[in-house]
Amino acid sequence: MMKILKYMLIFIPISIVGEFLHFSPTVMFILAALSIVPLAGLMGAGTEEISFYTSPKIGGFLNATFGNATELIISIFALKEGLFDVVKASIAGSVIGNVLLVLGASMLAGGIKHKTQKFNKKVSEVSSSMLLFSVIGLSVPALFTHTLNSELLNTKYEGLSVAVALIMFIIYILSLFFSFYTHKDIYSSDLEEEGEEAKWSLKKALAVLVLATIAIAIESEFLVGAIEPMTESLGLSTFFVGIILVPIIGNAAEHSTAIVMAIKNKMDVAVEIAIGSSLQIVLFVAPVLIFISLLFKPMSIIFNEFELAALIVSVFIANRVANDGESNWLEGVQLISVYLIIAICFFMI
Amino acid sequence: MMKILKYMLIFIPISIVGEFLHFSPTVMFILAALSIVPLAGLMGAGTEEISFYTSPKIGGFLNATFGNATELIISIFALKEGLFDVVKASIAGSVIGNVLLVLGASMLAGGIKHKTQKFNKKVSEVSSSMLLFSVIGLSVPALFTHTLNSELLNTKYEGLSVAVALIMFIIYILSLFFSFYTHKDIYSSDLEEEGEEAKWSLKKALAVLVLATIAIAIESEFLVGAIEPMTESLGLSTFFVGIILVPIIGNAAEHSTAIVMAIKNKMDVAVEIAIGSSLQIVLFVAPVLIFISLLFKPMSIIFNEFELAALIVSVFIANRVANDGESNWLEGVQLISVYLIIAICFFMI
Amino acid sequence: MMKILKYMLIFIPISIVGEFLHFSPTVMFILAALSIVPLAGLMGAGTEEISFYTSPKIGGFLNATFGNATELIISIFALKEGLFDVVKASIAGSVIGNVLLVLGASMLAGGIKHKTQKFNKKVSEVSSSMLLFSVIGLSVPALFTHTLNSELLNTKYEGLSVAVALIMFIIYILSLFFSFYTHKDIYSSDLEEEGEEAKWSLKKALAVLVLATIAIAIESEFLVGAIEPMTESLGLSTFFVGIILVPIIGNAAEHSTAIVMAIKNKMDVAVEIAIGSSLQIVLFVAPVLIFISLLFKPMSIIFNEFELAALIVSVFIANRVANDGESNWLEGVQLISVYLIIAICFFMI
Repeated sequence: MMKILKYMLIFIPISIVGEFLHFSPTVMFILAALSIVPLAGLMGAGTEEISFYTSPKIGGFLNATFGNATELIISIFALKEGLFDVVKASIAGSVIGNVLLVLGASMLAGGIKHKTQKFNKKVSEVSSSMLLFSVIGLSVPALFTHTLNSELLNTKYEGLSVAVALIMFIIYILSLFFSFYTHKDIYSSDLEEEGEEAKWSLKKALAVLVLATIAIAIESEFLVGAIEPMTESLGLSTFFVGIILVPIIGNAAEHSTAIVMAIKNKMDVAVEIAIGSSLQIVLFVAPVLIFISLLFKPMSIIFNEFELAALIVSVFIANRVANDGESNWLEGVQLISVYLIIAICFFMI
Repeated sequence: MMKILKYMLIFIPISIVGEFLHFSPTVMFILAALSIVPLAGLMGAGTEEISFYTSPKIGGFLNATFGNATELIISIFALKEGLFDVVKASIAGSVIGNVLLVLGASMLAGGIKHKTQKFNKKVSEVSSSMLLFSVIGLSVPALFTHTLNSELLNTKYEGLSVAVALIMFIIYILSLFFSFYTHKDIYSSDLEEEGEEAKWSLKKALAVLVLATIAIAIESEFLVGAIEPMTESLGLSTFFVGIILVPIIGNAAEHSTAIVMAIKNKMDVAVEIAIGSSLQIVLFVAPVLIFISLLFKPMSIIFNEFELAALIVSVFIANRVANDGESNWLEGVQLISVYLIIAICFFMI
Repeated sequence: MMKILKYMLIFIPISIVGEFLHFSPTVMFILAALSIVPLAGLMGAGTEEISFYTSPKIGGFLNATFGNATELIISIFALKEGLFDVVKASIAGSVIGNVLLVLGASMLAGGIKHKTQKFNKKVSEVSSSMLLFSVIGLSVPALFTHTLNSELLNTKYEGLSVAVALIMFIIYILSLFFSFYTHKDIYSSDLEEEGEEAKWSLKKALAVLVLATIAIAIESEFLVGAIEPMTESLGLSTFFVGIILVPIIGNAAEHSTAIVMAIKNKMDVAVEIAIGSSLQIVLFVAPVLIFISLLFKPMSIIFNEFELAALIVSVFIANRVANDGESNWLEGVQLISVYLIIAICFFMI
């Protein structure tokens, strides 16, 4: 797995050359995307290596918090460019993609090899009901706005968005406290790999992390800069790019891990990656982006109707799936199908 | 049970006489409806008899595929007449009716005799979560259309509808593969009647099937032809006829089976009929109707808001119920009540 | 607990004095609210004491029926004043408040002391699925109305509302029959306190009940009379008062009981209070208010979009929570957060 990713690093110099030679936006978008995938992988590996040199708690915290660093960096550049639609779409798209595409692909890939795969219901129930409550919380302002058909003043939206972001962020802090202190025993046995050791020196891990972050920042600038001219020349909507393409690029490395775990019959880990990653988007990435937007131009938390519909649908499906405690290939096919239908609809809008 | 149905066959010649004597549309609608009920019963019996002469797999496939033949035939005639609203309403109405009315009546009838009835959670969870994913998939285009309040081009709708129908149909094929090959053990022990044998010769079974099909086609023509003039003269909406009356007529024979099974304390079978039948409507009947409509005038898959609301509500209820693994008479009363309230609302629109 | 409530009775004479001295509406609202809280507590205590002198069945019936007497009285006065918006908002607000705020506070308070609290899944599943079906039934007319964007005639609404109210009321009667006759064994062992005896004489209990009812009626008149002038002077919406403030006032005594029970690790009782109380609002209080409104001016059952969204969200959360059979402090925090976000949105409308 890691080998293919390593070879993909070649796209970094190519994309930099492309920038100077003024390649077309579509080509630049693809090059930047292909560069970000291995960089996100390196970033994940670097964080994991560093965590071996810390206490398990700090390690867990680092993994949890930096797990979505790639998406965060891409979104910050999009924020800076004022592409609010892309940012919000990619928040919604990450949740939808994790729950439908990643979980679906894991269940399909794992289910072809293993007839019925079981996973720890306790953990997945805690995560999926947290996801339900969080997504509902995050959606309430949009739900009210759209059912109202009204023009709440924009200043009101800003205040409301910051309030909701604050509440979400507090829940995030409390959930870390929950999983690393008061209820750490629920998680410990399942998700930790025993007997693993650091392969890199601390110095190397830190260097990798810093370099990967810088490279992701550069490539994110290329990627975001290419979105508008590319969508214009291809006749795509920026919304489609935000809700389908950006999340796939930002999460590709993580996604492949989930699928590999499912094939190894570690469905627990695959489910936890898909649902846990969605949770972090909602409780950490979204609020942080709202806060950061205050430095440029305040972004509201009001999702559009499609994002709302797709978010709520995904979360109910996640809850249904988690509740089961079991999965098979047909369930995987169905999740992927729902994702496909949503993607086709988004494409046609 | 079968005896009453046999006597009802007398309505076939009466309806034919009525057609020649130009009976009023309302009378013709009622006569055709009363004829279709026993014919659907005969068709079910014929399919079951034939299945005794085949391998269990082919038998299961025949039962699954011809289970909704009556509805399919009625809908094809409605398609031919261009009554798209009736067709789509009857798709939604079949799901709603199966989940709320059939399941509710089964739980009530069974629950009066048996205090608490248990059913196989595994099977009902697989079916009900498949139903959830399928209905969500089928609803996504409509969900987007209505939240958008937009005018997507009709040509776009057609392409979208065919794409969704294709995906649904592929899932249908895969689900047959799932239940007859890769995971047949989940189903086998519960739903098969042991020691049953064919009562009819293969020749008789085939003859019954062919004759019943022809008679259903004739009666469907009477029924569909009577809908428009009847609704005009009675002040009913064709929508009400499509969503409430047509599904009750098309499914009456099957429904009575579910209730009889519930009274015999075979709640497994009753639940499987109600949810399984809904699944077939969504994954098989609906796509096939979309495909057939291409021969006449393409029908879109876009449900109206009521159908959408009622569909989603029904499916969540089905999931809640299945999740329980138990039923009692009060649950039955509640399901019937929700159906009643929906029917009253549809009647008043 | 009871001691604080006793001291609060001092607000009754103060509010009466205030009425004569024409205190400002805001002050009168607060005084009436502070008076109603201990009176509702007394009423609950009185009903419980009387139930010791009756058969368990009649006792259970009394507790169930008088459990929401305070809210019913407040709502009747609001009806008489024609404040339909306040009445409907307080019906929705009671359900939301019970499921999110009361259950959340119970889980938080209980979860701080006890790591993981278990409760009887059987009972909570029966209640929460009843709540799901009932709220869906009650919401269907509104769901159809709003998706329709139409102008159904008001006379139609009235007929529809009475029909739905009648169905709900019949289900209420049947559910009493269910829990006191056909399935009384599900409930008995869990919710009854063993070895408890009456502390008051029957005469005293009856006197307390009658006096409390009279006092609540007086204070309700003060409270309702103050709503409109108060909202005008403070710039609040009557809707906010109806959906947030009135339910908190009417349920305060009951709520404190739920929290106390959760701290005592009797999570069964806390869950049953929160969900059972919601059920009574939907199946008993709402229909009775519709019936009573026919004496003044008929009130429709059509909730507005916010109430609808919040109701449905709450009920799904209740089902998710009940399904778990377990709770912890973080789940409590999340429920409270959703309530908080909803309240902020309602405040800003």
